[in-house]
Amino acid sequence: MDEHAAHMTPEEFRRHGHAAIDWIADYWASLDELPVRAQVAPGDVRRQLPATAPEDGEPFEALLDDLDRIVVPGLTHWQHPRFFAYFPANSSPAAILGDLLSSGIGAQGMIWATSPAVTEVEQVVLDWFADALGLPAAFRSDGPGGGVIQDTASTATFTALLSALHRASGGEARVGGVGDAQWRVYGSTQAHSSLVKAAMMAGLGEDAVRTIDVDPATQAIDVDALRDAIVEDVEAGRRPVMVHVAAGSTSTGAMDDLAAVAEVVRERGVWLHVDAAWAGVAAVCPEHREHLAGVEAADSFVTNPHKWLLTTFDCSTFWVRDRDALTGALSILPEYLRNAATESGEVVDYRDWHPQLGRRFRAVKLWAVLRTYGLSGLREHIRSGIALAGHVADLVAADDRFELVTEPVLSLVVFRLRAGDEQTLAAMEAVNASGEAYLSHTTVNGRAAIRLAVGSWRTTRHDVDRAWRALQEAATQA
Amino acid sequence: MDEHAAHMTPEEFRRHGHAAIDWIADYWASLDELPVRAQVAPGDVRRQLPATAPEDGEPFEALLDDLDRIVVPGLTHWQHPRFFAYFPANSSPAAILGDLLSSGIGAQGMIWATSPAVTEVEQVVLDWFADALGLPAAFRSDGPGGGVIQDTASTATFTALLSALHRASGGEARVGGVGDAQWRVYGSTQAHSSLVKAAMMAGLGEDAVRTIDVDPATQAIDVDALRDAIVEDVEAGRRPVMVHVAAGSTSTGAMDDLAAVAEVVRERGVWLHVDAAWAGVAAVCPEHREHLAGVEAADSFVTNPHKWLLTTFDCSTFWVRDRDALTGALSILPEYLRNAATESGEVVDYRDWHPQLGRRFRAVKLWAVLRTYGLSGLREHIRSGIALAGHVADLVAADDRFELVTEPVLSLVVFRLRAGDEQTLAAMEAVNASGEAYLSHTTVNGRAAIRLAVGSWRTTRHDVDRAWRALQEAATQA
Repeated sequence: MDEHAAHMTPEEFRRHGHAAIDWIADYWASLDELPVRAQVAPGDVRRQLPATAPEDGEPFEALLDDLDRIVVPGLTHWQHPRFFAYFPANSSPAAILGDLLSSGIGAQGMIWATSPAVTEVEQVVLDWFADALGLPAAFRSDGPGGGVIQDTASTATFTALLSALHRASGGEARVGGVGDAQWRVYGSTQAHSSLVKAAMMAGLGEDAVRTIDVDPATQAIDVDALRDAIVEDVEAGRRPVMVHVAAGSTSTGAMDDLAAVAEVVRERGVWLHVDAAWAGVAAVCPEHREHLAGVEAADSFVTNPHKWLLTTFDCSTFWVRDRDALTGALSILPEYLRNAATESGEVVDYRDWHPQLGRRFRAVKLWAVLRTYGLSGLREHIRSGIALAGHVADLVAADDRFELVTEPVLSLVVFRLRAGDEQTLAAMEAVNASGEAYLSHTTVNGRAAIRLAVGSWRTTRHDVDRAWRALQEAATQA
Repeated sequence: MDEHAAHMTPEEFRRHGHAAIDWIADYWASLDELPVRAQVAPGDVRRQLPATAPEDGEPFEALLDDLDRIVVPGLTHWQHPRFFAYFPANSSPAAILGDLLSSGIGAQGMIWATSPAVTEVEQVVLDWFADALGLPAAFRSDGPGGGVIQDTASTATFTALLSALHRASGGEARVGGVGDAQWRVYGSTQAHSSLVKAAMMAGLGEDAVRTIDVDPATQAIDVDALRDAIVEDVEAGRRPVMVHVAAGSTSTGAMDDLAAVAEVVRERGVWLHVDAAWAGVAAVCPEHREHLAGVEAADSFVTNPHKWLLTTFDCSTFWVRDRDALTGALSILPEYLRNAATESGEVVDYRDWHPQLGRRFRAVKLWAVLRTYGLSGLREHIRSGIALAGHVADLVAADDRFELVTEPVLSLVVFRLRAGDEQTLAAMEAVNASGEAYLSHTTVNGRAAIRLAVGSWRTTRHDVDRAWRALQEAATQA
């Protein structure tokens, strides 16, 4: 028996690998002509696929054929130049190749010892990136904190909550559980849904999340209301454990006043977690750091290079000011097995920094982005997105049928038809159904609104103008 | 300003992409000559890297150069043909290219609507794979359950526990938290550490895990002791919520008696989670399904194609028998926002199947593996690993200085030097330090042992023989 009969030879890998690269280049070149949103109904993709796996191996080309024939028509194209929905999942050629190299290396970095370069490159790249964003020195790996790549901001927020519970309980939570201590977690009505999910997963339950109202104009958390809520809870014997600050909400990009919130939690020992999943990366530009004023008081901070900053999903960068709270909450080694190298900070075992044990060499893709773009290239990219959003805001202002709902924040513009909710949603749906562009909606102060988030490196002014013309046309018919 | 100045042109992407593919092929070709274990001390990699990110972009070739110069010497090579430590993280050319294509597509599949093909291909591939492993029909997406790709088995076990708490609490846990209900979770002394971590993260605390002794010979859970523990806990007013069955323990590959455990939990409503992270994929071979007898009683089941089955990390396949318990625990939509399509089972929104919100198109890599190998090719791969492990066991038996510690399980052989613990560990460390092969150790019944796990598609009989000769030499000196 040839043990390796079914495996690609090195020559086959090169040939199919080059074909896969070319498939991607061709796919990207075709995007402009494709409808952004998938034009399929439930089951359309599924019913084109066989009911069982093949008994015998098929040529790799058959997979590429089926991608073209079955998969591509069933995709909503997140890399399309006129994808403006949600937030971008913006992936650059450099990041894709960085991630490919990581796959080829195929190393596991659960602890330093299992493949040291995996851990050390990640530490260095996270230090680079912390500096590039102007984050406090305490977040660097040579201070008491450190950074780690998580899969998503949802996981980072959950991890922050576990760290907060560890610190607030003096280590009791990991041993005896959260019990019925009436822990309380705070975030605004605009906080990301992952906050509630984190409270559910951590065993606190969704009722433990106390939702604080926002200023109707800015959609930012009402800091006075937050203070009152915390005081009220403390007086009632409840235990405030974490405040979630949205540095760029999902709905409108609203920026909570981080410095003011920090003032509220100071001396109460409440964990301050900053969720800057989308907006945080804009801080590579010194002129776009205003929303992070006060971040030196944060206990943890997350932003996602896999959204706007050109890094293939998943790459969510998460920092803590005190890594002992984090590893204390998540370490699966009994105390007596901890080793001097880990404690000294010379060596980090990243398995204690997130829920998972196994971890791939994700730092390569972020390293590839930071190096091939350079900080100047990344600033240019961010500024380009902001400029395009400014252009959209001008277009909105120039058409009497439309109005801005909130002031544009960075590369996000939120607007509506003055005619009303129904017309607003109908116009958006018409554009989405046409495939010309893809937008998403939200509700602001009880009224429907359209979100247009720029961010793809492929998006030009021409694309924004095309989307806008489609919206204008739809508005005429709405 | 040229908005796209820093981005690779399509031609550059093709050129660098082909170079990255070739870099991987060359790296693989070099593995045989490289020491398996990294020969670096803490900080060696780090101090070769600049202190800050570059201001201006560097050529992509600079990254490849630094991989060769700085990273490769700092890697322990998990794809090396003589990597026998832990369990394999075995990555095939087909899987790597499948994952590359997914990066190029760059779609987000958090809900069906965000890119339908991402969800539907995953459902189909998970159905294929469930059938290929002989799993019960209830796990299929056209039944009451379904499958999902998780990042790791740790996350799957955590997710299983959240589902179990949801069901046992009648939905109260997600609302009011786990409280002080004295939930109890059961697993053997050999259960993976992720079980304790899951209990910590879910707010139960590590004390909620009741550890059950194993049979010293088989290292399998003592089912009578499990029954007694559950009865005792129920009588004391505690609430058994989940039993963890190891279908292949990390230490020795021990197989808990799943059918017998199922008998114990039957009618008690305790969630039965089967952790077959490593061994489960062997069930592609009908003759290697014995350890899954009784799996039709399991509430959830996880196995990792990213270990032995040639699929690039991360790809942990997780099935549940009742998807409502899972989505009930994790859904972040209030009840009244659930939609008919989701409830009908026609459409699945995978964001409610795991902790994360964002998710990449991971099904492509598993699809690529299943299609290009075919089931016959996968069986051949599994059988080859088992045959090589059998050969190792013969070598151990033929050398009086060594003895098997447990009966070999599938592709894992656990053995030691008769001379004692110190000599056993010294011999292993000598081999690891030499770079000739890489092994890991464990403790069985209080005594040190060496683990040799076969599984890489690159490993031949020649590699196993080389590792064995190195061990024999080390034993002579130990």
